[in-house]
Amino acid sequence: MTSSLLFDNIYKYIFLKNSVLIQPGEMQNVFHQILLKYGFAESKAKKLAEVFTVNTVDGVYTHGVYRFPRFIQYIKDELVKKEAEPSFVSGFGGVEQWNGNLGPGPLNAIHATERAIQLSQQNGIGCVALANTNHWMRGGYYGWLAAKKGFAFIGWTNTLGIMPAWKALDGRLGNNPLVMGVPFNDEAIVLDMAFSQFSYGAMELAVMKNEELSVPGGFNNEGELTKNPAAILESKRPLSIGYWKGAGLSLLLDVLASILSNGFSVAGISKQKSEVSLSQVFICINLTRLSNYSSIPAMLKNIIDDYKQSVPDGDAKIVYPGEGIVQKRNKNMKKGVEVLKEKWEEILQL
Amino acid sequence: MTSSLLFDNIYKYIFLKNSVLIQPGEMQNVFHQILLKYGFAESKAKKLAEVFTVNTVDGVYTHGVYRFPRFIQYIKDELVKKEAEPSFVSGFGGVEQWNGNLGPGPLNAIHATERAIQLSQQNGIGCVALANTNHWMRGGYYGWLAAKKGFAFIGWTNTLGIMPAWKALDGRLGNNPLVMGVPFNDEAIVLDMAFSQFSYGAMELAVMKNEELSVPGGFNNEGELTKNPAAILESKRPLSIGYWKGAGLSLLLDVLASILSNGFSVAGISKQKSEVSLSQVFICINLTRLSNYSSIPAMLKNIIDDYKQSVPDGDAKIVYPGEGIVQKRNKNMKKGVEVLKEKWEEILQL
Repeated sequence: MTSSLLFDNIYKYIFLKNSVLIQPGEMQNVFHQILLKYGFAESKAKKLAEVFTVNTVDGVYTHGVYRFPRFIQYIKDELVKKEAEPSFVSGFGGVEQWNGNLGPGPLNAIHATERAIQLSQQNGIGCVALANTNHWMRGGYYGWLAAKKGFAFIGWTNTLGIMPAWKALDGRLGNNPLVMGVPFNDEAIVLDMAFSQFSYGAMELAVMKNEELSVPGGFNNEGELTKNPAAILESKRPLSIGYWKGAGLSLLLDVLASILSNGFSVAGISKQKSEVSLSQVFICINLTRLSNYSSIPAMLKNIIDDYKQSVPDGDAKIVYPGEGIVQKRNKNMKKGVEVLKEKWEEILQL
Repeated sequence: MTSSLLFDNIYKYIFLKNSVLIQPGEMQNVFHQILLKYGFAESKAKKLAEVFTVNTVDGVYTHGVYRFPRFIQYIKDELVKKEAEPSFVSGFGGVEQWNGNLGPGPLNAIHATERAIQLSQQNGIGCVALANTNHWMRGGYYGWLAAKKGFAFIGWTNTLGIMPAWKALDGRLGNNPLVMGVPFNDEAIVLDMAFSQFSYGAMELAVMKNEELSVPGGFNNEGELTKNPAAILESKRPLSIGYWKGAGLSLLLDVLASILSNGFSVAGISKQKSEVSLSQVFICINLTRLSNYSSIPAMLKNIIDDYKQSVPDGDAKIVYPGEGIVQKRNKNMKKGVEVLKEKWEEILQL
C-alpha cells in the first residue's frame, strides 16, 4: 500500500508539470485499438484492454498504463504468444492443472479464476494450478474478479528471482505476490502483496525523487539495513518482509505453485532470458454453500467495524486492504486518470 | 526461526546452571499420566502427550513442555473441555464446517487435518473450517502431520488481538500463525510463522537476558521503531512483519477463518476473558492425483538445491523452513531434552 502511495506521490510531483488527463473509456479504446493492430483477436483485445484500464483506474498504474508498452514489446518479441489459449492438462475433483501455453498472463489468469469458481460451485472449493503462463500484471484483479462474483479467493504467482534468501547475498527468491479476497459491501476486501518490502520500481522512483524509503527496504553493500533506495539497487539485496519470515513464505509459495502446476519454479524462470513461463495457483471457495452464508455480511461488518475502531497514531487513517482501491477508482472514474504526457504519447505511437 | 533460535540461546544460557535432561519417552509418559489424572480418556491423553512431546523434541519448547502447565490450568478452569469432541456442522464437496465445542485445541486440529486429508482423497482438495476450538499449540505439528502422509498443507488460526493495525496504537489484530507444508525427502518442508515479528514470549525472554532484539520488533511509546524489547512490552506495539503488509495479511486470515468456520473473529476472541473459541482453517491437497506426481520429488530437489546454492553472508547457513526442526529433533531424540529444572518440577507436581 505504501509502495503505491509512494508511486502516487511521485506521479503527482512529476505530473504537476507534465501530465495529460485521460478518461477511462478513451484509455480502454486506445489499448483496444493497439491490441487489434498487433494482431489480437477481437475478444482478447477487448478483455486485455479492460484489464490494463481497470488496473490503472484502480490506481495500480505500474501494472496498468505504464506497463502496457512493455506488454506490447513482449508480444512483438513473441515472448507472450498472442494466440495461445490455456489448455486442460489433468483434473481430479476440485483440482485442475492447466497449461498457459505462454499466452497473455491476464487472459490465462482470468480463465483460471473463472475455472476455479466453476470448480468451487461443483466441489465447494476449486483449485486451478496454471503452468507456463506469463506475468498476470496485477494479482488483485483476479481477487476482485472472484470476490465481486461472491467467492473467497486465494491466489499467488511465482516470479523471477530477485530477493535473497535470509542471510544470503544473491536473489534466488521471487517476490511471489499473494492475493486474498472476500466480497464486502458490494465491493471487496482484497489484499495484494509481494514479499519484498518494496518493489524495484518503487525504489527506482524514490531514487528519482531523491527520497528515502519510509522503512528499511534492504541491505547496502556493507550488509547494513538501509532506507537508501540507491544503496539497495546497487547491492541487489532488497529485504523480504519480516526478514526470515517473508523469505520462508516466498519459498513455500514457489514450491506449491510449481509442484501443483507442474510448471517452472523461480529457479527455472530465472535461468531464462526473460521473465516468462510462470506458475500460478487460483483457489476459490463457494461461500453460498456454507451454513452461515446469510450471516457473512454481518460477520464482516463486525470485523471491519472493530478494525476501524483502532486508535490511530496521530491523524493516521486506518484502512483495510482494498479500501484505498475503491477510493482511487471512484476518483479516477469521475475525473479521469492523470498520465505522464511522454508515456501516453509513447503509447499512442505504438 | 530466529525467534526460536533466540529461545534456544536463552535456554542454553539458563540451563547451563539449572537444567535436567529428560528423555522423550519419559517426558511423554509423564504428560500421559498427568492427563489421565486430570480425567482425560486414555486415547485423548495419549494423543495429547504425544503432541506436547513432539513439539518439545522438535525444539518448539514454548508450545511443548513449557506450555503444558498452562494447558492443565485451562483444563482445571474448564476453559478447555476435556471431554468435548469436534462435531460436524455442514459440508459441500471438499469443504466442511466443524464445531470444536471448546475441546482441546491439538485434538480438534488433528481431527480437522485428518478430515481435510480424507476430503482431498475424495475431492483433490479438502478444506475443513473449525469454529469454537482452542489453542492448537504449535501449528507446524499439523503441517508435518499432513506432509508426512504425503499431502500439501495450508492452515491457519486466529488468536487474541495483540498487534496493532498499521498506523494504529492498540492491538486489534491477531498474530494468526500460518502453516504451509509439503513432503520432502522422507521429511517435509514446513513453514510455521506468526505475523508479529517477535512473540511476546520471545520479547520477555530477551528482557530477562538483557539483550536487544536482532531486528526492530515494534514501536516504543514515542512511536519510534526499536530493538528494545522492554520498550515494546511497555508500548504494546509489536510490529507486524513487513509493516503494513503483515498487518493486512493477518486481517485477511482472520476474515477467512471466521467466515469459513462461522466462528469468532479476533475481535470476538478478544472480548472474552481468556483466549478461547478460536477459528481455524485446514486445507489439504492430494498430490497423488496430479499428472506430475512421480516427478514432484525431483522438482523439489531442484528447488532446494538452487536455494542452497545461495551465496551466504559470511559463514551464515542457508536453511529452508523445517530444516532446523529435523536437526533439533535428531539431536533431542539422541541426547534427550534439556528442561529448566524448576519448570520440570512444576510439571511433576501437577
